[in-house]
Amino acid sequence: MQPPIGTLVVIGLGLIGGSLALASKQRASCQRVVGIARDQRTCDRARQLGIVDEATTNIADVAGQLGAGDVIFIAVPTLSVRRVLAGLGPLVSAAVTITDGASVKGSVLQDVQAVYGHVPPQLVLGHPIAGAEKSGVEAANANLYLQHRVILTPTEQTGSEHLHLVRSMWQAVGAEVLELSVQDHDDILGATSHLPHAIAFALVDTLAHDSQTENIFRYAAGGFRDFTRIASSDATMWRDIMLANTHSVLHAIDLFSANLAAMREAIAQQDSEQLLAIFTRAKAARDHFTQMLATGAQHAVPVVLPNFNDHE
Amino acid sequence: MQPPIGTLVVIGLGLIGGSLALASKQRASCQRVVGIARDQRTCDRARQLGIVDEATTNIADVAGQLGAGDVIFIAVPTLSVRRVLAGLGPLVSAAVTITDGASVKGSVLQDVQAVYGHVPPQLVLGHPIAGAEKSGVEAANANLYLQHRVILTPTEQTGSEHLHLVRSMWQAVGAEVLELSVQDHDDILGATSHLPHAIAFALVDTLAHDSQTENIFRYAAGGFRDFTRIASSDATMWRDIMLANTHSVLHAIDLFSANLAAMREAIAQQDSEQLLAIFTRAKAARDHFTQMLATGAQHAVPVVLPNFNDHE
Repeated sequence: MQPPIGTLVVIGLGLIGGSLALASKQRASCQRVVGIARDQRTCDRARQLGIVDEATTNIADVAGQLGAGDVIFIAVPTLSVRRVLAGLGPLVSAAVTITDGASVKGSVLQDVQAVYGHVPPQLVLGHPIAGAEKSGVEAANANLYLQHRVILTPTEQTGSEHLHLVRSMWQAVGAEVLELSVQDHDDILGATSHLPHAIAFALVDTLAHDSQTENIFRYAAGGFRDFTRIASSDATMWRDIMLANTHSVLHAIDLFSANLAAMREAIAQQDSEQLLAIFTRAKAARDHFTQMLATGAQHAVPVVLPNFNDHE
Repeated sequence: MQPPIGTLVVIGLGLIGGSLALASKQRASCQRVVGIARDQRTCDRARQLGIVDEATTNIADVAGQLGAGDVIFIAVPTLSVRRVLAGLGPLVSAAVTITDGASVKGSVLQDVQAVYGHVPPQLVLGHPIAGAEKSGVEAANANLYLQHRVILTPTEQTGSEHLHLVRSMWQAVGAEVLELSVQDHDDILGATSHLPHAIAFALVDTLAHDSQTENIFRYAAGGFRDFTRIASSDATMWRDIMLANTHSVLHAIDLFSANLAAMREAIAQQDSEQLLAIFTRAKAARDHFTQMLATGAQHAVPVVLPNFNDHE
């Protein structure tokens, strides 16, 4: 079986880019992997670790050779995507498939329009829902995407052959590929990911400024650990996300703040019935979510990965 | 070696009470364990499971026989403690040690004063920092308190022999015993436990009312699961805690809300520097906390439990 992809170029060799490069090499889902990083040491380290076949700091070294069946994956922080697109524009043939992994899709779509003046069919925007507290080239993990979701957000302009290729790229490394509109993606991630991160950062910042800080951290229980783990995420990445998804994030923060204010009022008024109603409803919703996750996991177990090394 | 405790009476055979009963029996840290529950079936089940030696629905069956060296552990929801204390008052000798496991200590201290008119030396208020999503007699777990913290909040009135006995009771089941004032306990738990629970309940309630609810739960990632796990906690227990620790909880909610509002403003103003500063500070605080936990865990490993079955 032929690998679906010819050359895979990964721009940005952090956790997200490095893991796709490594997984694609191990599954042999492309003929070769070229890594692009700003720092020569990152390029050297990626080669040493076997994450890429080749690596360079200069995209011009490889961009002109690419054609149909080749894929460029842009894996840089959300607000750096525009700079990368502007650099690629003049160098890359319209036959090459370009995709990205940024956490916000509306801002990237605006970047595309700013750089190209329109949305070229070769562009397939996407977002792998995977991550870890670790970052950098050393964190690359061939199993990062296994049974994780990747959301693609094609537009009317997206070419079906390009969409198909990006879908194959993610499926080859074990991901479940879903599609959403750009707006739905940003609203849903704003609620399920960006809002919880904003809350966790605000909570830890609150406790870190309390006069009882040392005691607070000393007596904190396990639930607190789970609850604040996401506040250890990369600060620059999250700064970018909040600035890129402003509208959806503000909307989510406002809804949440109104609910918290209502709960505050019920506590202040000692409104026992109202509190019990809120907590019972939330518990039922969370238990429903646990159920959905359990069902999802059962469906995800029998994933069979194509192995493009098997020439049959 | 003699067990430090004669008869241990556990009132309320849920997770907290049942686990102390079972662990005390297994470590032989008392001569016998008597369970008290409101439902005869709970009594029967606790005996079947070997959690208690005897069980009854009527505290009067056992209260009059108790004396110095015996301990009564009240393990009922926070707002039910007063009713239990009122029932015990006329039945129990002043020589008997009485302690509790409620999550809020200021409200229990008020209950004590309301029932007794003063704080008797025999009363040692406490709070085991342990829990699980499970509840009920079936959830009893002999290792629940192993390497977990128990905070005791003695007052000037507390008798040292009673404090010593309660301390021994918890150490015998593997817990690390600490002391705080009632006010510090309620402030610290308000910030590290009650506030995060209020936030988690409010967040899940917010998402459950969104027009995108089904999609929100479908696309939610692992961080969201950790973040909202505590919203699956028992609704009645948390209603009681919020009503019992009103002052500290409102103070904590107000500090957090002010911080979240400042972050919202920075996002709305696209204030990149301010956001990076908040996120960097929060990440540093969370990383410091992770370090404290790791150090604490190392200290906790070489715990050697006394075994009161060894008669030497």
